[in-house]
Amino acid sequence: MTATSGPLVRGARNPGSQGALRHLNQERLFEFLLANGPSTQAELARGTGLSTATVSNIVRDMAAKGVVATSPVNSSGRRALLVRLTDTGDIAVGVDFGRRHVRIVLATLGYDVLAEESIVLPLGYDVSESLTAASELLDRMLEAGGFERQSVLAVGVGIPGPIDRRTGTVLQGAILPEWVGVNLRELEDAFRFPVMVDNDANLGALGEVTWGENRGVRNLMFVKIGSGIGAGLILNGQPYYGYLGITGELGHTPVAEHGIICRCGNRGCLETVASTTVMIESLSRGAEKPIGTADIVRHGLARDPATLRIVGDAGSAIGQAIANIANIINPEIVLIGGPLAGLGDALLDPIQHGILQNALPAIGETTTLRMSSLGDRAESLGAAALVIQSSLAGHD
Amino acid sequence: MTATSGPLVRGARNPGSQGALRHLNQERLFEFLLANGPSTQAELARGTGLSTATVSNIVRDMAAKGVVATSPVNSSGRRALLVRLTDTGDIAVGVDFGRRHVRIVLATLGYDVLAEESIVLPLGYDVSESLTAASELLDRMLEAGGFERQSVLAVGVGIPGPIDRRTGTVLQGAILPEWVGVNLRELEDAFRFPVMVDNDANLGALGEVTWGENRGVRNLMFVKIGSGIGAGLILNGQPYYGYLGITGELGHTPVAEHGIICRCGNRGCLETVASTTVMIESLSRGAEKPIGTADIVRHGLARDPATLRIVGDAGSAIGQAIANIANIINPEIVLIGGPLAGLGDALLDPIQHGILQNALPAIGETTTLRMSSLGDRAESLGAAALVIQSSLAGHD
Repeated sequence: MTATSGPLVRGARNPGSQGALRHLNQERLFEFLLANGPSTQAELARGTGLSTATVSNIVRDMAAKGVVATSPVNSSGRRALLVRLTDTGDIAVGVDFGRRHVRIVLATLGYDVLAEESIVLPLGYDVSESLTAASELLDRMLEAGGFERQSVLAVGVGIPGPIDRRTGTVLQGAILPEWVGVNLRELEDAFRFPVMVDNDANLGALGEVTWGENRGVRNLMFVKIGSGIGAGLILNGQPYYGYLGITGELGHTPVAEHGIICRCGNRGCLETVASTTVMIESLSRGAEKPIGTADIVRHGLARDPATLRIVGDAGSAIGQAIANIANIINPEIVLIGGPLAGLGDALLDPIQHGILQNALPAIGETTTLRMSSLGDRAESLGAAALVIQSSLAGHD
Repeated sequence: MTATSGPLVRGARNPGSQGALRHLNQERLFEFLLANGPSTQAELARGTGLSTATVSNIVRDMAAKGVVATSPVNSSGRRALLVRLTDTGDIAVGVDFGRRHVRIVLATLGYDVLAEESIVLPLGYDVSESLTAASELLDRMLEAGGFERQSVLAVGVGIPGPIDRRTGTVLQGAILPEWVGVNLRELEDAFRFPVMVDNDANLGALGEVTWGENRGVRNLMFVKIGSGIGAGLILNGQPYYGYLGITGELGHTPVAEHGIICRCGNRGCLETVASTTVMIESLSRGAEKPIGTADIVRHGLARDPATLRIVGDAGSAIGQAIANIANIINPEIVLIGGPLAGLGDALLDPIQHGILQNALPAIGETTTLRMSSLGDRAESLGAAALVIQSSLAGHD
């Protein structure tokens, strides 16, 4: 959303005024590593269009200069050389605001995590207090690690609500109504750093394809099931934002024809039958005290029949909504994230059932459904990845 | 799907082994013009990342060599210089197979249409006979125009069914079951040219963003309403194919909870309530003889109440399905194509109503809904654009 300072990309950025092609190709590799994280030489060749011989020469040069480091790995059963950027001293900060927490991660441009912490926020927290708490946590983390403020490139912030990318403002539809209207400037005032803001599900998707075991997947949908249900999309290898930035509003797919009214004004939306809020409400009836998402996970794993029924019904509705979208965007992988991820197959099985029952057979049978590989770290790692990748000059 | 012959891009294609940067930048402009069609200098600068001064210099050079031609135009109310590739003598062929017709267009790499013809096919036609008819039509068109067979780069073929891009094979789900299993080799044998194959709705979308008044739109959904209902997607400025190539299956969005069984095996799919087949069936009851899509358009324009009711119900269901997808991919423009496009507002109004009632307000209010600007030419022009754009070396 905003350009960042820092001498991130060496040399002038105007391709019309540069010297040799070799330099241009070096830069291309450098940018690819920034954008995609540690990559094998074969991935570098595919991703840049350079020949493997050229890649191998440039990597040798860059390694000699200390710009990259290499290590042997196995890739699809073959031995390969993994190339990563070495530490430039620059720090990318990722911040994820949830309904009850804020989580912060500090990372290098080489995608190494330097520090990671989270704190619990009171339910229905005040936004400006939570911003202060997050900013203080960040300051403590920087101090504890002995990092200079100047080495921070920017702070990536994930917020559970739709973001208008034209203005960087949180729109109507955020899980916590207090977030609505918050804009980039307020966030920058709170953190006293340049800020980039994005929706939390978008960042979860980005985290998964840059840090997780789904690294490099080109068409992926990350579905976050919480008090809202949102999806982040990676399409053709890139985070997808559409026309205005309001994408992945999976929670507002109508699934119950004569259902109850949703906070969006429509009726029978997926969120009215499958959000964690609805599940908690159903399962708290008759209970001594209201339960939380951790209880749902615990009871589900203990195979409590009422919990399995509620989770099953919700999962099957979620699967139906995913199927509708999979019929259109044909993702390779659908990942499930959010506080119920610990349920494992008790949640995945009904979702899979809903997908198979509603998707075209060719889509249902070839779409891989899995739990998030990063758990509750996906969004904050994605927020750091946003900073790393957007640090590229000329990137918006 | 297949690389094509022809000395399309000058010079070696290995960017690691080339000489000067100027040559690289010229090639970049050339490729951009191939991929996007006639463009203003400002669009060229934005699209290539080159400075406007560099673009202007290169364009002057290329115009002096006769590679491009320029003409003044108005762009957003300002005067601008439109740049187009001049005729290289190469020909791209676009073929669109419909349920009742085949349409063929011949075009230059500069997106000039050289010839365009269509013939009617018998209802329920035999695929191999239709391929022979199309191939003979193409031969006649080449002969009539005095074009050598060697100048044909490739034939782009649009087929009304999902295509598995791994194998170039038509999958289950095609409107005409006889198409299922047809593959690239059979098409190449019929045409005796290299062939690229794609779904007709995908090609409609591509046609619209390269030839139509929606040229250059980066996020667009082209919805083709026929005996099937399919959508073609342009996302982030590129045709979108997903994991396997089976995208935009809008007709299989469930819209009627206890609806009738669809040919896909599911129930209550959009196609079971809103395809032209279903409309024709409803409106033919009690009529002296079965009506056709042209009758629906004629009666609708004459404001026949039964026709308006049937079109209205179908449109509103289509709008609901579009809203579900718009909530996820946030398109800038949704275009309606297919044989009912002549209905104009009689069809657009109920679709718009369905979108507004089911999409998030921020999405419903900002998504532009329009009829296709190219009418029944969209798919064949898109097929030719596929050839033009895929002629780029290294493109798949």
